[in-house]
Order: sequence, then structure tokens, then C-alpha cells
Amino acid sequence: MLDHAECVRRDAADPLGPLKQLFAAPDPGTLYFDANSIHAMPAAAPAKMAAVMDTGWRVERRRSWSHLDWLEQPRKLGAGLAHIIGAGPDDVIVTGDTTTGLFKLLAYAWEMRKAGTDTVLCEHGTFPTDLYVAQGLSRLLGGAMKVKMVETEQVIAAIDAKTAIVYLSHVDYRGSRRWDMGAVNAAARKAGALTIWDLSHAAGAVPVDLMGSDADFAVSCGYKYLGGGPGAPAVLWMHPRNQDRAWPPVCGWMGHANTFAFGDDYVPAKGVGCLQAGTPPVLANAAFSAMVDVWQQVKPADLSAKHEGLSQTLITLIDEQAGALGCRVTSPRDYALQGGHVAFSHDHAEQVMAALLDRGVVCSFRKPDSIRFGLGPLYTSYTDLWDAVARLKDVLATEAWRDPRYAKAPI
Amino acid sequence: MLDHAECVRRDAADPLGPLKQLFAAPDPGTLYFDANSIHAMPAAAPAKMAAVMDTGWRVERRRSWSHLDWLEQPRKLGAGLAHIIGAGPDDVIVTGDTTTGLFKLLAYAWEMRKAGTDTVLCEHGTFPTDLYVAQGLSRLLGGAMKVKMVETEQVIAAIDAKTAIVYLSHVDYRGSRRWDMGAVNAAARKAGALTIWDLSHAAGAVPVDLMGSDADFAVSCGYKYLGGGPGAPAVLWMHPRNQDRAWPPVCGWMGHANTFAFGDDYVPAKGVGCLQAGTPPVLANAAFSAMVDVWQQVKPADLSAKHEGLSQTLITLIDEQAGALGCRVTSPRDYALQGGHVAFSHDHAEQVMAALLDRGVVCSFRKPDSIRFGLGPLYTSYTDLWDAVARLKDVLATEAWRDPRYAKAPI
Repeated sequence: MLDHAECVRRDAADPLGPLKQLFAAPDPGTLYFDANSIHAMPAAAPAKMAAVMDTGWRVERRRSWSHLDWLEQPRKLGAGLAHIIGAGPDDVIVTGDTTTGLFKLLAYAWEMRKAGTDTVLCEHGTFPTDLYVAQGLSRLLGGAMKVKMVETEQVIAAIDAKTAIVYLSHVDYRGSRRWDMGAVNAAARKAGALTIWDLSHAAGAVPVDLMGSDADFAVSCGYKYLGGGPGAPAVLWMHPRNQDRAWPPVCGWMGHANTFAFGDDYVPAKGVGCLQAGTPPVLANAAFSAMVDVWQQVKPADLSAKHEGLSQTLITLIDEQAGALGCRVTSPRDYALQGGHVAFSHDHAEQVMAALLDRGVVCSFRKPDSIRFGLGPLYTSYTDLWDAVARLKDVLATEAWRDPRYAKAPI
Repeated sequence: MLDHAECVRRDAADPLGPLKQLFAAPDPGTLYFDANSIHAMPAAAPAKMAAVMDTGWRVERRRSWSHLDWLEQPRKLGAGLAHIIGAGPDDVIVTGDTTTGLFKLLAYAWEMRKAGTDTVLCEHGTFPTDLYVAQGLSRLLGGAMKVKMVETEQVIAAIDAKTAIVYLSHVDYRGSRRWDMGAVNAAARKAGALTIWDLSHAAGAVPVDLMGSDADFAVSCGYKYLGGGPGAPAVLWMHPRNQDRAWPPVCGWMGHANTFAFGDDYVPAKGVGCLQAGTPPVLANAAFSAMVDVWQQVKPADLSAKHEGLSQTLITLIDEQAGALGCRVTSPRDYALQGGHVAFSHDHAEQVMAALLDRGVVCSFRKPDSIRFGLGPLYTSYTDLWDAVARLKDVLATEAWRDPRYAKAPI
């Protein structure tokens, strides 16, 4: 049995343990397992935000465009976290929302597709916005782009001579199953297809090696494990071989080769810079920069080792402490197949989650019967897991979840 | 001659004068004429931002999506400022950057175009991002959409049976010439064409009456006269008759009819809500909400009366105090044709602007010889104008601009 003392030992041996102090202390007694929704706030973020508002907005005003680094932030933020996703520092840009980022890369890849291909291949049941983006672009293009949805098990076999783009989430947002990115990239390349990865439930948690696995394009949500702040802008990446090969679909002055020449004709900026459209969201970027300062202190190998340790510890604790009380781990037990969160089912999952929340365990429920613990490796300790599972065990053993207050879980 | 005493009298009679105290005091001695780039900061913005970061991000975390109004902010912000642009409160949404907003509405309008039309009509020399958006969409559509650029004087005559969309900036970003929106809308409607207006250099300053002038679609930058904060999200509007008529080009979960059903198939949300794509930028929206609270206290008629008063006072002061020293007002003198800023030329405009900046007059230079004063009606006083023109007169009379430090103006 994995006991409390072992959790204490694992904390003591954790090289990332000291990073917890770089995050603002939450309310006492609350345990957060929602890095798949919002990451902990870097302790430096409020001061950074206050400074940009005071110096930049109140005092400098338009002079900030020249005096401060507002226009460089999208590239600086991208360069500062590139190592976490196995990307080159010049190949990442932070801009727009995740959905719009998916749209931009899908349209860009479509322009680059191999002659004779016409299909975007994706999975049934993947995160809905990914599917909606493809459906919307297909409609915009008058149906020239075919969107083919298949079951997960059929994806690799479905890559064929008509496949233009293989378009997948690295980690499933429900069950937390992780794709072998290298295997999919290899199969796609063999068929002459391009790959686009949505890293939202992976980046900042599990190992992501875009260059090493030979991916073509990727997008990640900025506000989950990457910690950019609520509604933070997204992270966009293009392999260097794909840069300067097409136009972005949304052409704007900030993605122009010479923004301040104010010419009438669009000329795309070199590299990933063309994916910018309008003026950067200065305040959001200020918050994100506090987290990028933290990422600069993190080695990817330490990050994934910690995440693996947390995931496997949590699975063991659920098995041992709550298995007999009706909890069944549904996310993969092999870490190579696991995503950022651990999911488990219970017949009364919605009520159980609501009861946990009431006891300061912030996690999430997904229909029909799934509870998710999103594990932020930089601020979650092994004893946090012990404490959370102890509360879970108590909720189940006492059937506290039967209280009518817990009939419905929040989103 | 318009003298200082008259400026004092105009301030005393100004119904919007007391609103100045709703804005954070800038550095003493600095006068800001850059509302065409960044508006003054509402005094309540820092506390609003600090609260959303502390309560929302540090403490509540994912619970904020349910407890706070994060998901409703795009509609609330839109409803709160709709009266300033003559729009119904349910027809405005605050989302994304301005460039992406233009793209969304242009593609949406394209789907709605009259059979047999294929042309987007725009002006040479309008704000570049507007042109780039049209060029990019045209390319994405394989050239099916023709982009026709004509000179300003030829726009109305160029509307013909092939015109799908008339796509203009309400106010020119350089000379501050304002279109008669009603006249253009009428000409477009007669030909069966739709209109899209970029209000960036108009909204929050000059009168804008989208419903009264019978426009079809509009976008405004959120961070100029509308005061949403540096890089604030954009404001998007659709006439009710155009709602539920097409799909947005960027289809996302936040623009879905039932976001949290997580279905595989896109169904557009009703009304302007479909123009949302990804998760709202929570921090940026918190800043914007402080300004929307101010807009709630402003009647459009007072706003335009004040802006007209400021514009005409500034033009008179430049004429009388600086005309003999080489300054020539280049923006229209008829207020009905004037935009948010007043522009004037000088043979050494770049150096003059740099010297003004050094004397605490924050304005902007545009090639080749233009200086722009962007007038924020809610915090600019008539005596501010007097003081600024006095500094301008001094710079010119002493030829202080010849100092080599002033060789180049910042952007």
C-alpha cells in the first residue's frame, strides 16, 4: 500500500518541489486539480500586470508601443516556452484564441497540401472546437475540403492518398488517452499528408517533442497546463520546413513583412510571425510573461518525470483507497498513453465531484460518469494527492455525495 | 481670437467635464492626444483587474467559469457600449482582435451576398489591415472574391451590379476624413450590396448610428476611443436582419448554439454570439469592463457635442496660434466630415512631433508631414488644448524642433 509517509518521501526527492513557492498561495485547505482548465497563478503575475497597467497604460500610453516590448511579446513568450514542447525558439508565437489558432493552421496547411489530396482526417468525439473549425473551413471553401471523422482505432488505417491533413488532439480531453505522436507523424508523412496537433491537454504536463517526433503544425491552449492565465492567448507552432510556404487565412498588419510601412498590399511576415493578425493583447501577455519566466527555470525532462510520478501515484491511490468504493480509473495506466489529467469513473460521479468541490478539492466532471484531476506538475505535491484521495474516500465511505446539495456539478 | 479665458468658459459649461475624474491621473504636466492609439485608463481598472486575478485566478480557479461572469463578459461588454455606436444591446459582441473581427464579418457577409455579385469594394490607402484581410480571404477562396480598390472619390460611383460588399473605414486613419455612412449604406442597398464599416477611428468620438444609418456590419477597435485598454478585444456588430443568415468562418465552441453539450457537429449560436470562437480573454475583458461602466454614464449626444467642441476649438487654435508658423490643418473643417482626430501638416512634422513629445504633448506623426491629435472626449478639456497649442507655438517660434534629438519621431 502506498502510504502517507511514501508521499512525503516522494515530495522530499522532487527536484521541482521548490517551484511551488513561485506560485501565489491559494486559499488554505483548497487543493487544485484543475490545471486542465486554469493553472495556478505565478506569484509574480499581479505585480507584472499592475506595472504594465500603470507604466504602460496610465503613464506612457501610446509611447509604450515604442518604449516597451508590447509588439515583441508574442515572439518572446513563444521563444520562452518553446523548449517545453520540443520546438525551436523562433518557431513559436503566442497569439489569438486556441480555436482561431486551429483555424489559421488548418487553412495554412490546406494551401500547402499535396496535389490530389482533399481530406482532413480527425476523430469522432475529439474536443468539439477542433471539429467545428474544420467544418467551418470546409463550408467556407464550398466543400472542397472534406472532413472525415473516424473512430480513434481507425485513424492510422484511414490515412490514404486523399488525406491532406491529419488533425488530432494529442490528448483526449475526456479519457486522457495520449497519441503516439511520432507514429502518427510517420504514417502521415509516408502518405504525403501533413499533421496538425492540438496540444491543449498535453503541453506543460506530458512530454511533447514536436521536432523530435517530426510534426508539421501545433496549437496549444495557453491557459491550461501552460499557465498563461484565464483565457490566455494560444501557442502556435510551425515546423521550419513549413514556414514561408503559404499565406495565413487571416492576413493582418501585425503579420505583415513590414507592418509600419502601411502599404496597400499584403506580404506575409517570415516564419510564424505571419500568424499574427491584429494588435497583441498587451494585458493578457503581461500575465503570460510571469509564467514564461517560470518555464525558463524548468527542464522538460524534470517536468515529465514529475508529471509521470504524480499521475502514477494518483492512479495507485485511487485504486488502493477508493477502488473498493466504486472508483475505476479510466485513463490509460501506461504513462506513454496518458495525458495531462487522470480520469476515473463512478456511478454517481456528478454528485461525488460536487461533494469533493465542497470539501476544497477542485476537480471537474464530464458526462456521463467521469471525474478528472488535471495535474499541474509545478505546484502539485504528492501529499496533495494523498490529502485529496483521503477526502474522496471519506465522501464515498460516508455517502456524503447523497446530500441533495450535490445533485448537480458545475461546469 | 479664441483666448485662454474662453477655453476656461467652455470647460465650465461642459456636461462631460466631471467624467475626467473617472480616469486615473496621468503624470503631471503630460497632455495626452493619443486616443486614436490608447485611451486614458479608467481609475477603476486596476482594482477590477486585481480582483479578477486574485478572486478568479488565484482562489476560485476553474470554479470561476461558473461563479463569475467570465463567459458572459463578451455579451455584457457589447451591450454596455452599444448605445455609443447606435446599436441594439443584443447585437454587439466583444471578441478577438480587430483584424480577425473584420475577417469574420467579411466572410459572413460573403456567404450572404446577392447571387451574381463577386466584388468587395474598398478604398486605396485605407487602414492596411482592412485591405490585407480582404486580400487574404480572396486568396483563401481561390480568387472567387474579387477585391476592387478605388480612390475615395470614386467609391460611390463604383458600386455596381457586381458589388457584393462595400467595405470601408468610417474615418480615415491619416487625414481623419469621415464617410457619410447613411449615404453609402443607401447607395449600397440600392445596388443590393452589403456594407461593412471599420469604426476604429470613429467609435467613442464622433457620432456613429449603425441602426439609424442602416448599416449591415461593423467592427471597431476596442483600445482606441472606446478605451478598453492596450490591445483590448474588438467590438463586432451585425444588423438584426443579418443575424442567423450564415455561418461564421471561424466556428468554435464559444460560438456554438450549445457549447457545453460537446457535440461533434457545429450549430451556430443565435445572433452575434456565433462570432465568438474560443475562450474569452478574461483579463482583458476585466479591464474593458471598467471602461464600459464609464460608457454607461455617457449619452451619445453629449459625447459627440463634446468631441465636436474639442475638434473645432483645436482647429481654431492651430489656425490662430500656429498657422503663421507653418501649420496647416488637413482634416476636414466641416465637422460632419471629421473623424476622431485632428490632423495638421508642417514641413518638419516629424521633428515637431518629437519636440512636442519631449514637452509632454503625446500625439503622433504619420508620413510624410502629418501630426495627429486624437481627442478623447471624456478626459480632454478645452484648457488642455490651449496648453498643448501653447507648447506647439513655442516649439515652432523657437525652432526647438531643429535639435538633433528630434530627428526621428517614434511610431
